[in-house]
Amino acid sequence: MAKHELMARSECPVARTLEAIGDRWILMILREAFDGVSRFSDFQRRLGVARNILTVKLKALVELGIFEVQPASDGSAYKEYVLTEMGQATFPIVISLRQWGERFLYRPGEMHSVLLDNASAQPVQALTVRARDGKALGPQDCHRSLIRRED
Amino acid sequence: MAKHELMARSECPVARTLEAIGDRWILMILREAFDGVSRFSDFQRRLGVARNILTVKLKALVELGIFEVQPASDGSAYKEYVLTEMGQATFPIVISLRQWGERFLYRPGEMHSVLLDNASAQPVQALTVRARDGKALGPQDCHRSLIRRED
Repeated sequence: MAKHELMARSECPVARTLEAIGDRWILMILREAFDGVSRFSDFQRRLGVARNILTVKLKALVELGIFEVQPASDGSAYKEYVLTEMGQATFPIVISLRQWGERFLYRPGEMHSVLLDNASAQPVQALTVRARDGKALGPQDCHRSLIRRED
Repeated sequence: MAKHELMARSECPVARTLEAIGDRWILMILREAFDGVSRFSDFQRRLGVARNILTVKLKALVELGIFEVQPASDGSAYKEYVLTEMGQATFPIVISLRQWGERFLYRPGEMHSVLLDNASAQPVQALTVRARDGKALGPQDCHRSLIRRED
């Protein structure tokens, strides 16, 4: 608990994000949401996750403001978990995880999915940290500075 | 365990990456490594993590090929944990976590760090998923396709 409290108060946004969503199931749920999954039963079936765990994780995602609960779009009694703007903005996180895995975690001959641009059917670019002028930056090319969040 | 086995066999690189490094401490260790931390005692002091947990996580990171253990650069008896190419390539993952936190997890008036380009002292660009032609892509603009990993 002490760890979580410290991370939630941290001036480091990496620590604060990990405190909020740095959890395998939460990130897998976000992956499913980007594939269009929105119902409890569909998350459960596709992830093979226990109902009680899924309940806790979805509740956390709603409380964080990542999902909004809406009535089912087909008029049925189901609820749908719909990504908010804050939820949609996790897209680069999920894609950075995907691209690192594509590059390092498969042996020759293994099958894996890749992400294609609908318009061109070509793979998307590798996410790259860039300066304002477009120059690619590595960890050695950057430093951190403290700022106060504005209104 | 069943969950971990399934994720490690997955054709989805997001699942496989989460199985490998989808853990708060591991991602915090990587953040420290990008800040230049390389010794057990420095990781421990900065993260406030228990020695036994840190030992397990560093061992996992070495086994995965993310850290290489080297003799200390100052000739002392310490070991240093140095990021391999595979480890350096987690930079966009750490930065995507940072940027989402910067945007959504701070209230007005709170202090947080930002990442600046050394050359210009300006904030780095927001990571954006892009098509080969440079067009910014949202989750709706992409689809997945299965490929076989080449030699």
